[in-house]
Amino acid sequence: MKPIQVGLLGIGTVGSGVFNVLERNQTEIMRRAGRGIEIAMVADLDTARAKAVVGERVRVVNDARAVIADPDIDIVVELIGGYGIARQLVMEAIEAGKHVITANKALLAVHGTEIFAAAHQRGVMVAFEAAVAGGVPIIKALREGLTANRIEWIAGIINGTTNFILSEMRDKGLDFEVVLKEAQRLGYAEADPTFDIEGVDAAHKATIMSAIAFGIPVQFDKAHVEGITKLAAQDIRYAEQLGYRIKLLGITKRAEHGIELRVHPSLVPAKRLLANVEGAMNAVVVHGDAVGTTLYYGKGAGSEPTASAVIADLVDVTRLHTADAAHRVPHLAFQPDCMSDQPVLPMSEVVTSYYLRLRVADEAGVLAQVSGLLAGAGISIDAMLQREAGEGENQTDLIILTHSVREGTMNDVLAKMQALPAVLAPIVRIRKEELA
Amino acid sequence: MKPIQVGLLGIGTVGSGVFNVLERNQTEIMRRAGRGIEIAMVADLDTARAKAVVGERVRVVNDARAVIADPDIDIVVELIGGYGIARQLVMEAIEAGKHVITANKALLAVHGTEIFAAAHQRGVMVAFEAAVAGGVPIIKALREGLTANRIEWIAGIINGTTNFILSEMRDKGLDFEVVLKEAQRLGYAEADPTFDIEGVDAAHKATIMSAIAFGIPVQFDKAHVEGITKLAAQDIRYAEQLGYRIKLLGITKRAEHGIELRVHPSLVPAKRLLANVEGAMNAVVVHGDAVGTTLYYGKGAGSEPTASAVIADLVDVTRLHTADAAHRVPHLAFQPDCMSDQPVLPMSEVVTSYYLRLRVADEAGVLAQVSGLLAGAGISIDAMLQREAGEGENQTDLIILTHSVREGTMNDVLAKMQALPAVLAPIVRIRKEELA
Repeated sequence: MKPIQVGLLGIGTVGSGVFNVLERNQTEIMRRAGRGIEIAMVADLDTARAKAVVGERVRVVNDARAVIADPDIDIVVELIGGYGIARQLVMEAIEAGKHVITANKALLAVHGTEIFAAAHQRGVMVAFEAAVAGGVPIIKALREGLTANRIEWIAGIINGTTNFILSEMRDKGLDFEVVLKEAQRLGYAEADPTFDIEGVDAAHKATIMSAIAFGIPVQFDKAHVEGITKLAAQDIRYAEQLGYRIKLLGITKRAEHGIELRVHPSLVPAKRLLANVEGAMNAVVVHGDAVGTTLYYGKGAGSEPTASAVIADLVDVTRLHTADAAHRVPHLAFQPDCMSDQPVLPMSEVVTSYYLRLRVADEAGVLAQVSGLLAGAGISIDAMLQREAGEGENQTDLIILTHSVREGTMNDVLAKMQALPAVLAPIVRIRKEELA
Repeated sequence: MKPIQVGLLGIGTVGSGVFNVLERNQTEIMRRAGRGIEIAMVADLDTARAKAVVGERVRVVNDARAVIADPDIDIVVELIGGYGIARQLVMEAIEAGKHVITANKALLAVHGTEIFAAAHQRGVMVAFEAAVAGGVPIIKALREGLTANRIEWIAGIINGTTNFILSEMRDKGLDFEVVLKEAQRLGYAEADPTFDIEGVDAAHKATIMSAIAFGIPVQFDKAHVEGITKLAAQDIRYAEQLGYRIKLLGITKRAEHGIELRVHPSLVPAKRLLANVEGAMNAVVVHGDAVGTTLYYGKGAGSEPTASAVIADLVDVTRLHTADAAHRVPHLAFQPDCMSDQPVLPMSEVVTSYYLRLRVADEAGVLAQVSGLLAGAGISIDAMLQREAGEGENQTDLIILTHSVREGTMNDVLAKMQALPAVLAPIVRIRKEELA
């Protein structure tokens, strides 16, 4: 049988990985897929670079539309990134009846609804294992491996750059800015690291997982997004003393009145496996009502780990493209006519627990005032840590871990707490997840 | 559309879990599968127990063959266990053109070749996600999620009973026999725990993973199987002092001249996630050439975690049964006509590193003799620990960690070492895996 014909749009880091791994492991992959998989055409603006990767045997063009228009191409792999031209090309490829594979989480988190609807209409597959956690087959686990379960929550370290930075801050006791520069030097952070360090990339991925887990549309605009730029080294230290590590988590959770969808730094108990995921590695914890807690770990980025996921999608499409469209795995795990309209909750409705750091005057009665405000709002204290004021100091740090409470309630209390004369600096508030 | 009709053979712990989870999450599961999944018939020798679980609406019979013979049944779920009647019934169900789902690792590890050949011949699916690591979708990860990769090795904690016992031995410093009794009392170990503690259950699972990872037939008879019954509390302590934990690992590895397939206690660096998997939990590490190291973690046994895997298979079969058989995921990940004949290596050809504990006379020259034997065979020493002899003692423990060596070579050296007059007791040898 003729190999299935693949057209690559963009051949940078991931595209080269796809080409090289397909070439290196072609026998092994064909033994699995039952059919050859051939990159027949590559579009890249930099045709010289593309030719340097793929050699003479593959057609290289500078116009992505030539790939889409080619009647021999069965599958289009979009590796351009971003919401702009990538979106148009994906829509055009679907319109042309091509199956599409993409690693573009930003595109799917923002325009997924439109894209999946078009694909459903046209009877083609859009596969996106590489969009979340690189080579870790987490999309497959959620869409196929855990279908028995009512998923209760997902919490993941899904951005390697920020996890590398947080690991370094903790290991070396350094501040964010210092470690960021180091990460940029080592290639773990980009020259413009905004999407990573502000939590946007993690929120794209959390949005996609949320849709698949709960059968809701992708709704990136409803996600709460908070990065790690304001994290202080001292909070990492205090957390450690209390038995916690601070990780940037992407969280999505089924609550009584809707779905939580949020990315922010979180204290995680040090004994959890997730707390021990270090460096640029990714890990996702999924809690289902039948299976309990499961965890998936691996490299979340890089040329070949991401290529591993893209090629798994290529094999899936090769295996499944002859099946009638109604019997394929639905794009968002649930059948398109069975989506839920549960709302994504505003942050004030989220229920979680908190780490608070207050810079307070070292004088009698402060603790009573602070704990009185918490008690008044029905917030109970889980643990407390008061740094002893140094010789000659007249202020100190008061660290409080609370039990769970609605964030709106906590916001009100924090406003009152901040207004206390004995509270001398802006209160630091970091959320805490027990993941039990 | 009429729900797909399922017949259960055996409704004990796992069967009840399947029934209850299907019932509880039926809406959610149907939204995913695109079709209802209905347990229409149950066969169990204990019909009263079966009726107590499934109520009045489901037909209960005491003859499994009545389920297989029923023309309305699309899928037969075998939950009887063992190699005996289960094997006959699975073969008969296949012959009758039913898709089969089984959690029976023993059956597949021993008779898988025959079963999968029959299923291929008859054009039906045999799905077995529940056979390895309970609810963790590791079969799916290997067969579908990592298809891009040349798998290099797999190492897993795939028996919860033994991991619970090892965790307790370490935590409480207790001996094997004491903890086993406790585990039996708590229901973590069976009344006859032989299959678990002797490593047989783990070897069944490792055999299945080995076949899927490397495209070789299931060959349980070639597996090296060693349990934890001879592990001493002191070795767990010494390992800890050297920065390691002892786990019962199922290992399969691609070597130059064949495939390693072995289950035995192993030292694992304490900093690895796998070393931190405690209690009855399971975890499998898979190393692929493109993706690098990935890990999958969760509950490896129990009613609902196992049911989670069985139902995932039910959803898969429901989604895929209309596809032509040639385009389904092959049973053993590779197409049946593309299997490899790489041999499973004898244990003497396995290359690994070692922990050795020698009870030696506390006298000059012993260390020189021992290290001389190692050096003579080209085995280099990675670390050493000598317990100081107590007041009035004339013997002591000498602990050695070696670098990698062929096991045959190590066996020769150990024989010579054991013959040294200064070596006063049988040498303890535990293998060590860096999992790097």
